[in-house]
Amino acid sequence: MSQTSPSSTHNLRADGARLWATIHETARFGGTPKGGINRLTLSAEDGQVRDWFREACEAAGLTVGVDALGTQYALRPGQDMSLPPVAFGSHLDTQPTGGKFDGVLGVLAGLEVMRTLNDAGIGTRAPLLLVNWTNEEGSRFAPAMMASAAYAGDFTTDEILAKRDAAGTTVAEALDAIGYRGGEAVGERAIGAFVELHIEQGPILEAEGKTIGVVEGGQGIAWFDGRIEGFESHAGTTPMPRRRDALLGLSEFALAVERIALAHGPSAVATIGEATILAPSRNVVPGQVAFTLDMRDPRSATLDAMEAELREAAAEIGGRRRMTLALSRIWRKEPVPFDAGVVAAVEAAAEGLGLSRRRIVSGAGHDACNLAGRVPTAMIFVPCKDGVSHNESESATQGDCAAGADVLLQTVLRLAG
Amino acid sequence: MSQTSPSSTHNLRADGARLWATIHETARFGGTPKGGINRLTLSAEDGQVRDWFREACEAAGLTVGVDALGTQYALRPGQDMSLPPVAFGSHLDTQPTGGKFDGVLGVLAGLEVMRTLNDAGIGTRAPLLLVNWTNEEGSRFAPAMMASAAYAGDFTTDEILAKRDAAGTTVAEALDAIGYRGGEAVGERAIGAFVELHIEQGPILEAEGKTIGVVEGGQGIAWFDGRIEGFESHAGTTPMPRRRDALLGLSEFALAVERIALAHGPSAVATIGEATILAPSRNVVPGQVAFTLDMRDPRSATLDAMEAELREAAAEIGGRRRMTLALSRIWRKEPVPFDAGVVAAVEAAAEGLGLSRRRIVSGAGHDACNLAGRVPTAMIFVPCKDGVSHNESESATQGDCAAGADVLLQTVLRLAG
Repeated sequence: MSQTSPSSTHNLRADGARLWATIHETARFGGTPKGGINRLTLSAEDGQVRDWFREACEAAGLTVGVDALGTQYALRPGQDMSLPPVAFGSHLDTQPTGGKFDGVLGVLAGLEVMRTLNDAGIGTRAPLLLVNWTNEEGSRFAPAMMASAAYAGDFTTDEILAKRDAAGTTVAEALDAIGYRGGEAVGERAIGAFVELHIEQGPILEAEGKTIGVVEGGQGIAWFDGRIEGFESHAGTTPMPRRRDALLGLSEFALAVERIALAHGPSAVATIGEATILAPSRNVVPGQVAFTLDMRDPRSATLDAMEAELREAAAEIGGRRRMTLALSRIWRKEPVPFDAGVVAAVEAAAEGLGLSRRRIVSGAGHDACNLAGRVPTAMIFVPCKDGVSHNESESATQGDCAAGADVLLQTVLRLAG
Repeated sequence: MSQTSPSSTHNLRADGARLWATIHETARFGGTPKGGINRLTLSAEDGQVRDWFREACEAAGLTVGVDALGTQYALRPGQDMSLPPVAFGSHLDTQPTGGKFDGVLGVLAGLEVMRTLNDAGIGTRAPLLLVNWTNEEGSRFAPAMMASAAYAGDFTTDEILAKRDAAGTTVAEALDAIGYRGGEAVGERAIGAFVELHIEQGPILEAEGKTIGVVEGGQGIAWFDGRIEGFESHAGTTPMPRRRDALLGLSEFALAVERIALAHGPSAVATIGEATILAPSRNVVPGQVAFTLDMRDPRSATLDAMEAELREAAAEIGGRRRMTLALSRIWRKEPVPFDAGVVAAVEAAAEGLGLSRRRIVSGAGHDACNLAGRVPTAMIFVPCKDGVSHNESESATQGDCAAGADVLLQTVLRLAG
């Protein structure tokens, strides 16, 4: 392949119409009447889209390999095959009532990058590698993002192969059923950098009218179980000042959670997603409330500070209202900072394309968050309608998908030389 | 019987030890291992305590009648039989895990009044009538307080006789089973005034160290169903300022409910007893919350004002938080003011006995609240431990029970002349 001048590659654009057609062509594998996709990992429909993907890659001159967990790798040679490939991709599996863009966009935009380079006759120094990770969604087999986690060394291949779905089928059996238990050892394939294009799955870009999210990293998460013990009493005979109403304790705490997250904004979020009054009755003052708390921020120090402030608020409210307000942390995942160089490449690509953009942090988990533990990684977000995802109504525009593919293309060119 | 001088009747006291012994003697009918009573209305145990009561009344020279709903009336003649009797009493049925004092105290203290007058050889101008109302508790047959409601004309006898318990047994069958379907037409027996002694079932008297509650009336009640419609969104990807978190709407509203009830204090109370997040999940911002609201005050105007303020708060919170906060009133019961003359008689009786006291409003429903619609009525409260009732651990002291019986005695003497 011939090396083109920087000016010509900087003007290179993906074919947005072809990408859009490809997205809709593959949406028939597991397509639902409501316009979504039901394509659980390693299902027959997943097998069909994998077959389509392999054939499309081969038609684009790529060499497709499959690892022992079914992840597909499509390689485009570079001028210097001693360099580790610049990789990009996402996943083709969906939620049971998923949309047409979550994961799919990242893989098919990657295919579009390969096709565009082919059409322009452009070669790169480093090889390029397009990846379709197995089971990002986690709907059929837990945990989610298991293949990329195994690639990063968080699980062994055997651990993952033995996971079972609700029907008792193992990952190994499901791989064999669709012929996708590949020969490559998981994690053996070298990757020099990884870039994942994805819909935002949140409302920020759309609200701010930005086309590109330059993703700096994945948030850290802390989960808590909470319990409030007040005193159950008669709603008719207990004067207000004598009450120890656990729901009022929760109410003050929920507002404190909001206040604390706002104070650590704009990226900090905290949510009481479940709250249950024990033995509730219309004419009984609530005595006990159980609740959950989900807290996220891109910085560990912020998670620490928020937790300290939440515990202080709980103690203050509990003391003043004569009740106990206990918080138990049940899980914590540290933030995943993406690689500064790869993030800068994404930003420069968006800038070079004249696209509106903002730095952003991923609130959801992605294969890229797993890869980041081993490989220089970043992500590119494009807007989705109303921030809705994991829903058949999930929607993104052709223009935004094309812009995302352009940024992916230009980022890859910058990284691969 | 002979008329005694005012000074001698003013010094008359009930026999507190005899009352205490009687309370414990009858507690064996349905007595539970934990020291409570399981004596559902019209059960075999209720039949046993009714038989005991009839025999005890007859032994005290009273004439016992039974009406068509099983209510027992024990008459002590007066010097002027053209006067309607001064009535007092309560109920001998209990909750399935009830205590020894709820209802029982009022009936057995009434018996003690009769016995004390007999022992002292004191007659009254008006006859005295001790009443044991059928089914105050409502645990077996709904509604609660059905016999006194029928007496007051709120239901026909046939309506009540046709009510069924969970096993399908009618009130008529249950009355026949224990031989307590009496011959008297319900509501035919004239009553000149009614006084009910009862444990407070709330914490106020105990907290303030008062022995006697001079009950001015029963609270009015309004019940509401509430619904908050925010917007469900991802706990990781939705920035705090963009959320429409229904639980935070509920939290603000719950604190507004508390604030408004406190502002209308000391008697106003308002309670969110049930609150449910629809489709809750640990990592989803709550989109919808359903809740109940119970609001009480002794004055209609206060109920009106509180409702208006609550609706204003709901609109303000909903508008500011971009969610709907709908309140639907599903029931309202107007306050029951007791008769000023009977209340004054209770207060004068307590004052004459040198007992500490306060005016109080009943937060719970009582047969007296039904009677008040037809007959000049008041109640006397005595403290119960920690305000606990409808529980086997329900507790009152011998001294407080005796004081309550003394006040009942002196009130009856004032009313009956």
